[in-house]
Amino acid sequence: MVVKNRKGLVQIFTGNGKGKTTAAMGTIIRAAGHGLRVSLVSFMKGDYPYGEYNTLAKIPGVEIFSFGFRHLIDPSNVKPEEKEQAVMALAKAREVICSGKYDLVVLDEVNVALGYNLIEVDDVIRLIKDKPSAVEVILTGRYVNDRLIELADLVTEMVKVKHPFDKGIKARRGIEY
Amino acid sequence: MVVKNRKGLVQIFTGNGKGKTTAAMGTIIRAAGHGLRVSLVSFMKGDYPYGEYNTLAKIPGVEIFSFGFRHLIDPSNVKPEEKEQAVMALAKAREVICSGKYDLVVLDEVNVALGYNLIEVDDVIRLIKDKPSAVEVILTGRYVNDRLIELADLVTEMVKVKHPFDKGIKARRGIEY
Repeated sequence: MVVKNRKGLVQIFTGNGKGKTTAAMGTIIRAAGHGLRVSLVSFMKGDYPYGEYNTLAKIPGVEIFSFGFRHLIDPSNVKPEEKEQAVMALAKAREVICSGKYDLVVLDEVNVALGYNLIEVDDVIRLIKDKPSAVEVILTGRYVNDRLIELADLVTEMVKVKHPFDKGIKARRGIEY
Repeated sequence: MVVKNRKGLVQIFTGNGKGKTTAAMGTIIRAAGHGLRVSLVSFMKGDYPYGEYNTLAKIPGVEIFSFGFRHLIDPSNVKPEEKEQAVMALAKAREVICSGKYDLVVLDEVNVALGYNLIEVDDVIRLIKDKPSAVEVILTGRYVNDRLIELADLVTEMVKVKHPFDKGIKARRGIEY
């Protein structure tokens, strides 16, 4: 169901703490639970076996488009194919947002793609300005651009108060990824 | 699948910003996507038609126990039945955590129940200390108690940077609840 006559907002989840992508995922299942149509465009996840994708892919009304590589990007030495993936993700984001087929579109880790200069902030701003009024868009990732904060309706910063990685505990399958 | 020989941490999502419950929901679907067994014990949601419950209830390996009332509690005038619901939720939390049936248990809005003095912080601390080592526990809600922060392995504060409610925009079905 695509809901008519609603005003879609622009939300940002950013910060150095946990819960940016997971909060977006939680918003997706909430929306899907109400029968909204949702799309997730992942900018930096590649084919990494993130548990949430397995589950999300099975939920009716949720479509996932995944870009990027499995390896971490070195921001001081960005490769052309890394840039290309992010540019393709942004093109897919535009297609999806402007299609009229979705109520909610999540651009996962788009802020990181911007922070690493894989894509241009002007292009993201243009996309948000071009979006149909009813579409809700969520942008996640640390390094959010100030111009996006200004444009957004709702910005939440996830702040790390205490984190086990500081104590040398490693990321665990099923919990952190 | 219940995973053996893993060390379950204690996570807290708190703060005045958006994304505490949704981040816990996202963690649930991530865990379920890896075949972990998950339980959600909701302290304050009652039978409110939260969209995420509809979706979560359909995911294999996820069990939901919901307590509390549909109305908001007035912390200066707590009713016995409101207290009773929170006490029952905590008893269910103990049963679920100690059952050995779940890898991840989310105590949704338990911090609010504590902040409103519906339950005792000593009882929550005792439960966390009694938990089987392998069980991961997530506590959500604003007003987190300092003694819980000390006990937790991972604490994230969701900080409101910008929020549309400040501009008078109301909570919207499918997005905020």
